[in-house]
Amino acid sequence: MTGNKAVAYKGPGKVELIDIDYPSFELKDGPGVNPANVGRSVRHGVILKTVATNICGSDQHMVRGRTTAPSDLVLGHEITGEVVEVGPDVEFIKVGDICSVPFNIACGRCRNCKERKTGICLNVNPDRPGSAYGYVDMGGWVGGQANYVLVPYADWNLLKFPDKDQALEKMMDLTMLSDIFPTGFHGAVTSGVGVGSTVYIAGAGPVGLAAATSAQLLGAAVVIVGDLNADRLAQARSFGCETVDLTQGGPAEQIEQLLGVPDVDCGVDAVGFEARGHGHDAKEAPATVLNSLMEVTAAGGALGIPGLYVTGDPGGVDEAAKKGALSISLGTGWAKSLSFTTGQCPVMKYNRQLMMAILHDKVHIAKNVNAKAISLEDAPKGYAEFDAGAATKYVLNPNGYLS
Amino acid sequence: MTGNKAVAYKGPGKVELIDIDYPSFELKDGPGVNPANVGRSVRHGVILKTVATNICGSDQHMVRGRTTAPSDLVLGHEITGEVVEVGPDVEFIKVGDICSVPFNIACGRCRNCKERKTGICLNVNPDRPGSAYGYVDMGGWVGGQANYVLVPYADWNLLKFPDKDQALEKMMDLTMLSDIFPTGFHGAVTSGVGVGSTVYIAGAGPVGLAAATSAQLLGAAVVIVGDLNADRLAQARSFGCETVDLTQGGPAEQIEQLLGVPDVDCGVDAVGFEARGHGHDAKEAPATVLNSLMEVTAAGGALGIPGLYVTGDPGGVDEAAKKGALSISLGTGWAKSLSFTTGQCPVMKYNRQLMMAILHDKVHIAKNVNAKAISLEDAPKGYAEFDAGAATKYVLNPNGYLS
Amino acid sequence: MTGNKAVAYKGPGKVELIDIDYPSFELKDGPGVNPANVGRSVRHGVILKTVATNICGSDQHMVRGRTTAPSDLVLGHEITGEVVEVGPDVEFIKVGDICSVPFNIACGRCRNCKERKTGICLNVNPDRPGSAYGYVDMGGWVGGQANYVLVPYADWNLLKFPDKDQALEKMMDLTMLSDIFPTGFHGAVTSGVGVGSTVYIAGAGPVGLAAATSAQLLGAAVVIVGDLNADRLAQARSFGCETVDLTQGGPAEQIEQLLGVPDVDCGVDAVGFEARGHGHDAKEAPATVLNSLMEVTAAGGALGIPGLYVTGDPGGVDEAAKKGALSISLGTGWAKSLSFTTGQCPVMKYNRQLMMAILHDKVHIAKNVNAKAISLEDAPKGYAEFDAGAATKYVLNPNGYLS
Amino acid sequence: MTGNKAVAYKGPGKVELIDIDYPSFELKDGPGVNPANVGRSVRHGVILKTVATNICGSDQHMVRGRTTAPSDLVLGHEITGEVVEVGPDVEFIKVGDICSVPFNIACGRCRNCKERKTGICLNVNPDRPGSAYGYVDMGGWVGGQANYVLVPYADWNLLKFPDKDQALEKMMDLTMLSDIFPTGFHGAVTSGVGVGSTVYIAGAGPVGLAAATSAQLLGAAVVIVGDLNADRLAQARSFGCETVDLTQGGPAEQIEQLLGVPDVDCGVDAVGFEARGHGHDAKEAPATVLNSLMEVTAAGGALGIPGLYVTGDPGGVDEAAKKGALSISLGTGWAKSLSFTTGQCPVMKYNRQLMMAILHDKVHIAKNVNAKAISLEDAPKGYAEFDAGAATKYVLNPNGYLS
Repeated sequence: MTGNKAVAYKGPGKVELIDIDYPSFELKDGPGVNPANVGRSVRHGVILKTVATNICGSDQHMVRGRTTAPSDLVLGHEITGEVVEVGPDVEFIKVGDICSVPFNIACGRCRNCKERKTGICLNVNPDRPGSAYGYVDMGGWVGGQANYVLVPYADWNLLKFPDKDQALEKMMDLTMLSDIFPTGFHGAVTSGVGVGSTVYIAGAGPVGLAAATSAQLLGAAVVIVGDLNADRLAQARSFGCETVDLTQGGPAEQIEQLLGVPDVDCGVDAVGFEARGHGHDAKEAPATVLNSLMEVTAAGGALGIPGLYVTGDPGGVDEAAKKGALSISLGTGWAKSLSFTTGQCPVMKYNRQLMMAILHDKVHIAKNVNAKAISLEDAPKGYAEFDAGAATKYVLNPNGYLS
Repeated sequence: MTGNKAVAYKGPGKVELIDIDYPSFELKDGPGVNPANVGRSVRHGVILKTVATNICGSDQHMVRGRTTAPSDLVLGHEITGEVVEVGPDVEFIKVGDICSVPFNIACGRCRNCKERKTGICLNVNPDRPGSAYGYVDMGGWVGGQANYVLVPYADWNLLKFPDKDQALEKMMDLTMLSDIFPTGFHGAVTSGVGVGSTVYIAGAGPVGLAAATSAQLLGAAVVIVGDLNADRLAQARSFGCETVDLTQGGPAEQIEQLLGVPDVDCGVDAVGFEARGHGHDAKEAPATVLNSLMEVTAAGGALGIPGLYVTGDPGGVDEAAKKGALSISLGTGWAKSLSFTTGQCPVMKYNRQLMMAILHDKVHIAKNVNAKAISLEDAPKGYAEFDAGAATKYVLNPNGYLS
Repeated sequence: MTGNKAVAYKGPGKVELIDIDYPSFELKDGPGVNPANVGRSVRHGVILKTVATNICGSDQHMVRGRTTAPSDLVLGHEITGEVVEVGPDVEFIKVGDICSVPFNIACGRCRNCKERKTGICLNVNPDRPGSAYGYVDMGGWVGGQANYVLVPYADWNLLKFPDKDQALEKMMDLTMLSDIFPTGFHGAVTSGVGVGSTVYIAGAGPVGLAAATSAQLLGAAVVIVGDLNADRLAQARSFGCETVDLTQGGPAEQIEQLLGVPDVDCGVDAVGFEARGHGHDAKEAPATVLNSLMEVTAAGGALGIPGLYVTGDPGGVDEAAKKGALSISLGTGWAKSLSFTTGQCPVMKYNRQLMMAILHDKVHIAKNVNAKAISLEDAPKGYAEFDAGAATKYVLNPNGYLS
Repeated sequence: MTGNKAVAYKGPGKVELIDIDYPSFELKDGPGVNPANVGRSVRHGVILKTVATNICGSDQHMVRGRTTAPSDLVLGHEITGEVVEVGPDVEFIKVGDICSVPFNIACGRCRNCKERKTGICLNVNPDRPGSAYGYVDMGGWVGGQANYVLVPYADWNLLKFPDKDQALEKMMDLTMLSDIFPTGFHGAVTSGVGVGSTVYIAGAGPVGLAAATSAQLLGAAVVIVGDLNADRLAQARSFGCETVDLTQGGPAEQIEQLLGVPDVDCGVDAVGFEARGHGHDAKEAPATVLNSLMEVTAAGGALGIPGLYVTGDPGGVDEAAKKGALSISLGTGWAKSLSFTTGQCPVMKYNRQLMMAILHDKVHIAKNVNAKAISLEDAPKGYAEFDAGAATKYVLNPNGYLS
């Protein structure tokens, strides 16, 4: 019997390695599995031996205890792996293929999947549209920070890399295709970035840096990233971004110093609901990012909002925040005819193209987000460092593929 | 010397007919004229003899005293007229042409105009992008509820009707091209309405009815309109809409009775910042419409928001509302991957096509919004009736063109 | 053992009823089956009992002997049916469901399917992208003009009607969803039709009439249809189209009489490669339609080209036509900045929305194309009448569902 | 009186410097001026002192005698200049501004201009939509290969550079904004180039190289350029393009060697009607480029066709070509569901964004097209070298701005 070690949430602030079952082609009961999903047949699935699986900022919401995630929930929705078993209904994916797994689980058979809206698939989460591996309230699909993981609807979900050796060589870049690179790209695209745009990205964490990388790839003239964290700002500057230090105040004035005008064409919110205000001792202030983006985005612009906002946040700063309500200066946005795009990135809409850009050396996402491979055993340390603000994207290496 | 009577704001709740100067090709000082616009040469303008000019819901915000509009500000941004004089720089518009005037004033020479964003022209309002006739804080262009009015950048702004007799015959429909028909259409388009869509429109005032008409014209399968006002709901039903009576509670349950599901593909906010809640004695509750639209719009949908939201509202229900901040359940929208489009409708993007639909009898907007022509003298009465909730669109007839 | 009668091609000009095997979940060898597809497992398929299956103009190319179709090839790619058996890999489609089958067969798992380009699926036809039931050089999937038919990748391909009784009641309309209604709609959409457009459609056969119906549904101001066949023109006029009689010469002059200008915003080619010229004794002239559409489409317009053009036509009028080469006046198109969209309609992009429009009584496609149900036995007669120019869309009724 | 020297066409193969009048704010009669344009008032115009003006491949069609251009027609539609006089109706452009002139002349007041289709403006060319400076059958606007030139509708047409010193410093790049950079960009955009695309560009002249540069700027994964001219291919390789040597045969095989597959996502025709075939002694074969592009563009792809095709070509290789008709293998395109975009690039849609990319050092178009400044006196030599196939873009320097 093959062993399967996995990174699990063990309570607020606590992440540990546990032993879990090797996957089978059925969704079994377990921590966080939706009762309606228990026993679900996954003949269309494959079992992956994990090649790389990353720690994500949205995992931190659970780890910090800001959700109702149960103990022993296996984490991990950023997964790349080698196929070791295929279900009987899988036709095109083969054993030995190295594949990227979009973090959104999708059936490939519902109205939304047919319309490319794989972030809100109707058939994978009994509670509501949309799902993900290893995440609270997402149906109970087991996370991929483990040696092995089950991927359902494999012919639909998996992006196969064309060449195995090349894939392993560029794995530190390719592993970003499962989530943050498409997510950042979606943020940039939905904020309207095109050739010649000026862009402001709120947040220099991995998604913010991926959005900045994406904006450059899309031909932006100037990409500006704002954060309170000096290391992350330095990381943004390392690949040609301009930066705004939010400990010095809101972004408008610093943007004006950079551009000669106090606003940009496109705004990206790469922070989400745990936002903090500006200035030296900024406190949590969940509407800050959106309100300041409306201020600095020029009339006629758009806001891409890949940063996560939740429907309920037990740890919210006030009663409104606990219910997911924010005090938004909508009048400002309306006067400027702004538009807004929210929600999970539908990874499948972008991952093949971004893979092509990586394989042909047009983009260096691993370098830009400062990717660092660590062992599965070091995952708890990685979570802690990341939470402390390290300007690093942690990539777990459960099976030694990453040398 | 030609006389020029005009409808003016005279203080909260008060509208009166006053005498104003016959226009010249210069923007003269007057109530609400931005100092930076005083003396501006308008050689590119024409003088129109008003054929029809409508009372708009957004005028009511001023009339109710919810803005800083000064006394004697001449109202009216929904204008259709006959050209009686052309400025020396006008090349294509001729004396005798009957033309529709987009309520947004635009220069046709700035970046935004070149990008079809005429609702946020950079050159007509010294304060900020975007302008309109007869409106507070919009630069001071004199309103058109008068016998004569000046239209700047006439070659760019005016939509000439191809045949004068035909135009006068269909004037009650064509007069809606200056604002509410394109505005409703913009709401429908930006909410994603297409062939086969299900649509919920919040608000059965003229803009809501125009949005409903537009949704039908765009091929929607089911158009549902919600309001607290029984007469307006009856008006919506008169042309084939389904309705939701908000005095009976929020829209989700009634939508489910109509469609078998509790949500729609597309949501339109045709109410704006003076929204009231649901139920029998609904009070002003500015975020109600947006929050309920997020609830009833299906995952992957979009919200078109032609309803006006302001940056400051001295009469707001609480401190947040006074600053234009609303308590928005953004988490709900984010979980459903909704997108949002706000702002003035860029009329020029749609008015020619809608004119074609009117001229070829594909749509009957006047009937659908229950248009009623009244004399300029009756304007104060029209304002009062409209404010009291009449299911009527009032069209002023300052020069007797409308028989 | 269940019998299965089917309409087969028996040589130029000849169509007969034959007995074929009841389908199994495997693609067996047979007339026109690509060797690489023989023995292909279709566990993802369902067997349909045919409710309605239509004769299509593109079938006529085969029947006239203009292709290399082998004898005994079973015809029929316009299929609606009731599910009587589901393969072991089918998850969401159930026995008893009444479903529309897009004529393009698609896997739902390749790059093109993921991009909504189901007309050029990469996995169903070993020869080249794209496939269809009962068609030469399309992989060999058995046609549906039969009692029973196999539909592969059923969860992906099938559009399930929400209510069985309602579906049977509106079946004469719904049967058009398998091909001609979406195909006509695609022609209209790709020619740029929107609210207020003027449109010229070359060809008043069923696809042309479906394009005209679609243009109306999309809000066109004026829809003009041209043909040489008086009955078909009368059919177009029966639902509000204007018509151009091509026996009287090319379309420009007649369009000018209708519109006052000699051109339209949008042009649709609903004829294809067997086009004939204009005038009284018009001969086959394969480039006529495209060249005249370029002439009558205004600068900046677009041409939607749902009419079929082939890579080889053994019966072509000259050597160039035999190789599928046409003498196109491209300079005319270039000077007017025209754009062109060719190819099979990706039915799945449109069929759900058009179903909604039918179910909610927004469109009457059966009436507009003059649909007529006939028995399977009468299929040869239907083919002959249709080929002779009847202004009728023939719907086969193999199992008596259509009363 | 200020002298004004200009480059004029003097008959097939002959270009000379002549003296012409200093411009006034009226379009005077002269070689090639449309009678209906003679005496036209241009109060909305400005007079530019030419800073840079380039020789274009489409000028060569005239110079080779392939058009009906009259002797003494002043050439030049790629113009950048300093404003020295403004007409009385000009409001925003000022004396001293350095501006780029889109080669398409547009009024900014017609339906097409309002829809951003400035390449087919309805008001500047009495013969048909669309116009350009210094070009046969385009209305008669005087060319800009001169010391001074008149630009009509200046507020609309001109793109003002934000900083004069910076503009002069980057002038060799910025001068490409008047035509070839946007034209190449339009070709890339309309062929569907996006992040991760594979692209084949037929033609390594300046427009082809600009299209290749644009494809890179848009994030293409692989850009392949094909030509018969070894120097031009070397130029393409100098900035990272792959190349196909068409003296060795058609592009498909060489593309397969580069990509592993014989086709690309996107195809650009940067050649036009004077195309030659493939192989060692390729002859003029006007349909070659389009037919081979259809062959090498993958199913579902698009062709951008910025290369010029004409309605009449007295020097065409056969009767069909003389009438602008080409033998197109449309069946090949149809089977692959290709789409096609033709026509003049609407420069104004792109030039501001491309300017931003240049000013912020995101693109080096001058280097990529091997721009070389020469004096006005050397223009005839420049024309001859360019016609002989020099891998050089010639920039005229009539007033010594370029040092």
